[in-house]
Amino acid sequence: MNYNIAVIPGDGIGPEVIEQTVLVLDKIGEIYGHNFNYTEVLAGGCAIDKTGEPLPEKTVEICKSSDAVLLGAVGGPKWDNLPGDQRPERALLGIRKALGLYANLRPAILFEQLKDACPLKPEIIGDGLDICVVRELTGGIYFGEKGRKDTPMGEAAYDVEIYSVEEVRRIAKHAFEIARKRNKVLTNVDKANVLESSRLWRSVVIDVAKDYPDVTLNHMYVDNAAMQLVRNPKQFDVMVTTNMFGDILSDEASMVTGSIGMLPSASLGGNIGMYEPIHGSAPDIAGEDKANPIATILSVAMMLRHSFDLEKEAAIIEDAVKKVLDQNYRTGDIYSEGQKLVGTKEMGRLIIEAL
Amino acid sequence: MNYNIAVIPGDGIGPEVIEQTVLVLDKIGEIYGHNFNYTEVLAGGCAIDKTGEPLPEKTVEICKSSDAVLLGAVGGPKWDNLPGDQRPERALLGIRKALGLYANLRPAILFEQLKDACPLKPEIIGDGLDICVVRELTGGIYFGEKGRKDTPMGEAAYDVEIYSVEEVRRIAKHAFEIARKRNKVLTNVDKANVLESSRLWRSVVIDVAKDYPDVTLNHMYVDNAAMQLVRNPKQFDVMVTTNMFGDILSDEASMVTGSIGMLPSASLGGNIGMYEPIHGSAPDIAGEDKANPIATILSVAMMLRHSFDLEKEAAIIEDAVKKVLDQNYRTGDIYSEGQKLVGTKEMGRLIIEAL
Ligand SMILES: CC(C)[C@H](C(=O)O)[C@@H](O)C(=O)O
Ligand SMILES: CC(C)[C@H](C(=O)O)[C@@H](O)C(=O)O
Repeated sequence: MNYNIAVIPGDGIGPEVIEQTVLVLDKIGEIYGHNFNYTEVLAGGCAIDKTGEPLPEKTVEICKSSDAVLLGAVGGPKWDNLPGDQRPERALLGIRKALGLYANLRPAILFEQLKDACPLKPEIIGDGLDICVVRELTGGIYFGEKGRKDTPMGEAAYDVEIYSVEEVRRIAKHAFEIARKRNKVLTNVDKANVLESSRLWRSVVIDVAKDYPDVTLNHMYVDNAAMQLVRNPKQFDVMVTTNMFGDILSDEASMVTGSIGMLPSASLGGNIGMYEPIHGSAPDIAGEDKANPIATILSVAMMLRHSFDLEKEAAIIEDAVKKVLDQNYRTGDIYSEGQKLVGTKEMGRLIIEAL
Repeated sequence: MNYNIAVIPGDGIGPEVIEQTVLVLDKIGEIYGHNFNYTEVLAGGCAIDKTGEPLPEKTVEICKSSDAVLLGAVGGPKWDNLPGDQRPERALLGIRKALGLYANLRPAILFEQLKDACPLKPEIIGDGLDICVVRELTGGIYFGEKGRKDTPMGEAAYDVEIYSVEEVRRIAKHAFEIARKRNKVLTNVDKANVLESSRLWRSVVIDVAKDYPDVTLNHMYVDNAAMQLVRNPKQFDVMVTTNMFGDILSDEASMVTGSIGMLPSASLGGNIGMYEPIHGSAPDIAGEDKANPIATILSVAMMLRHSFDLEKEAAIIEDAVKKVLDQNYRTGDIYSEGQKLVGTKEMGRLIIEAL
């Protein structure tokens, strides 16, 4: 089979982690007889430098005509003082919207081998953590009307959080489907005691729940959810929430696992999925062969599973990563005494060897 | 001196913790020759039950003509199915707005004696935690326009996040003043890479900073702040943020300390301050003499300090609480083996004895 992948190396450590990931994918292709074709495109800071805009039209076109998109990371201090609509982050928001990627899946998993890196006490973690945050990604306050206006208290700026019934319904369905394949517990997170949009959100989630009698549905206010992730993260299986709350809670959840350099993500919903590590562009270590490529490598495992239905190949990659961790190889971000420190390239090579 | 205090016992454990707190305050009055007069008023669920509305006009009037307001807790499952504008929480929002309480101070402190209750590993906590979250409390998405409207994707609901220059300026000033009296580091938390309101917010904070050259100002995106509170909370001294982000981050910060049953809060800005524990109404243990009154007792310490300028009396209460903890007395929520379990009343009595 032929698979066309649009590749966005992006900024900072993006190109390095993407390089190793493409090598892993090539090896998978070789072993299983798949043809992965890559088209490299510009987005983020490097696109600003070369074309003047964070998301050139050509990038969007190529992404739209590919089978899946793989992204390294975008952004960095170099572009931090540009006006809002010209910053590298616009590329992310633009692709999400253009591809209709309304469902962002962020697994927060504690890797057995990295237990020591978890900031929480062992008695809270027990035998591990495995939470899947399902974040709405093309609506809410990220994409609602925004602007400036005059008020009696001086100039004011506003952003509108808005959700329609259909927007909530499709993300809720997505979350229930995922919960059904996991431990069948879905926690809806909103702020229905204050926000009108949350009240609509919650009522639609409750409505969708009727089609999933096998899934237990809980509701939690966002402030409480932020607490519970620290107090007792094991209570969560799947969480579903808005774009803004999901941004905050998924980052908190991944930090709670202590495995943040390891965590992949998938953005789904349209015909084409986008896959990326949840870590950022880490400009401080860019180009030094220090970055951990595992999160990006696990992101292509998600790509194989969700976009290409290649479950076996996905599992092979995940197993290879575990094997290498079991052999105590670590990049700097997950290194601790007594283990074997390796660079980006060597980590990639080891994983390919373990496939 | 005469001090008139409007007292809102509220729902759940509210009345019990208020009872002990008033006894503590009476004792302080006796020792130092102050006259504390209390006017008990209705708000929250009990007000709904008795008057049909969460915040009777009379309550607002009495609060407005008092020198300070003391609140136990409002809300409970009994009233959870009422429509948004008739729920107990409306009482909180209504008082905040009516009294102009735009600055919510939430100290997240780890009590030395409760170190074991902290969910984070000892190496992260080090010699303790002492963060002050300054949350804007009368603006933003809590009070912006909200409603429903038709869209091509069906009915939609919206809430407007809006901040004016003046609203940001006054809370920023407040936060800088607090930072100046502490370790002189202020972290501004926003989402300026996505929200227009955050961009205005950040620019005003930067402007206000010019008057505080002695305070170091940092900026952090809210998703990163949610992570950093878990990864390395010790980096924070004072945090300033919006109503919505502050709701989430202040709860996360207090849970990170593990001392949540102990934490007071102050809502300031107008002529009259409101003081309340950050914990909720805990209906499951209401009326059983199990609630921890310490957070409420420490809230009146904040009242003495901020509203009445009685620093010495405030410190005496705080010392008494520490003394009782040092003697290993604990209510159920903070109890661990080998300590002395006491009820609400006994805890109140011990603190009064220790004054
Ligand atoms: C960079 C930023 C715009 C983005 C977001 O807020 O969605 C990022 O934080 C993320 O979560 O992917
Ligand atoms: C009860 C609720 C309306 C309130 C809020 O969100 O402000 C509470 O969570 C708080 O933080 O005081």
